[in-house]
Amino acid sequence: MRVMGVDPGLTRCGLGVVDALPGRKVAMVACGVAATPAGMDLDQRLLLIAGRIGEWLDLHQPQALAVERVFAQHNKMTITGTAQVAGLAMVEAARRGIEVALHTPTEVKAAVTGQGGAEKAQIGRMVARLLKLDEVPTPPDAADALALAICHAWRPATISTLGQAATPAQKAWLEAERAARRSRPKVVAA
Amino acid sequence: MRVMGVDPGLTRCGLGVVDALPGRKVAMVACGVAATPAGMDLDQRLLLIAGRIGEWLDLHQPQALAVERVFAQHNKMTITGTAQVAGLAMVEAARRGIEVALHTPTEVKAAVTGQGGAEKAQIGRMVARLLKLDEVPTPPDAADALALAICHAWRPATISTLGQAATPAQKAWLEAERAARRSRPKVVAA
Repeated sequence: MRVMGVDPGLTRCGLGVVDALPGRKVAMVACGVAATPAGMDLDQRLLLIAGRIGEWLDLHQPQALAVERVFAQHNKMTITGTAQVAGLAMVEAARRGIEVALHTPTEVKAAVTGQGGAEKAQIGRMVARLLKLDEVPTPPDAADALALAICHAWRPATISTLGQAATPAQKAWLEAERAARRSRPKVVAA
Repeated sequence: MRVMGVDPGLTRCGLGVVDALPGRKVAMVACGVAATPAGMDLDQRLLLIAGRIGEWLDLHQPQALAVERVFAQHNKMTITGTAQVAGLAMVEAARRGIEVALHTPTEVKAAVTGQGGAEKAQIGRMVARLLKLDEVPTPPDAADALALAICHAWRPATISTLGQAATPAQKAWLEAERAARRSRPKVVAA
């Protein structure tokens, strides 16, 4: 299964594509960022990022798109742009009939490191290790996008379908996801 | 000049199109809402709204799209969906080469009523009066979209270009816009 992860942001939107292989292995297909200059008009920045995400979807043909779930209570100053980029990514995928999934930062951390409260640097190191890369992918937005893709590829539903036993990291993921479902505010209603 | 206004929202996204006529008159071209059910997946709701906005742009061919500027500090529970719909509207316009403008609620209120702190019901009544409608457009999201379009059509830049003297409402608009420029946080950087 091929999954594309999107770490939404206006200045740098992280993009990462991985293939989930048998035996709980993952391989990197591509990673990078869609960057836009702060001085550009907002509508042009959003158009540019939407176009780049669309190109990646057409080029890499993932079966699923994993996007970071954006919470309104965090980073008030940047939430609007982040939410907008997340929305564009979802629409570009939906337009192509690609499954969309949202994962919280805690779920992603738990999935790749086994700890929901892992440090950012630790995520980068684990992404490099899991994908057998010589170096940690940069910028961090690209590493985060790969972590999102890995998180989705390893979600418990997939694991149970494949009949594989859950690893400690997958168990932590499942717990983090359940906790998020219990506690998160309903952010999607308007 | 034809302007389309968008009052962004996931459950009901207000849409309104007006023509600015000589002598500071405005005429309604169309108004309505793009509604999506709360139970639908977020990516499908966003895709549906983006499609509807695109259809309106293609049908009515406005020269400009006016969108309500979304502030992160208001309505925390709904800000994510609202910001996402605003972003989609901007991209649909930018994709068609249509000028995009953002206006704050205070600017819109000042433009149509002469008072930046006007009540919601007062906006609806003024929209009906300015557009010579027998009834206040419903739902309120549609009236708000028309107010946004009128606000943009009547912005001081247009007025000064036309060589017309500013009315009290336009002066209030200008003051509200200046105040918003001075005080608003930089919400677009991520």
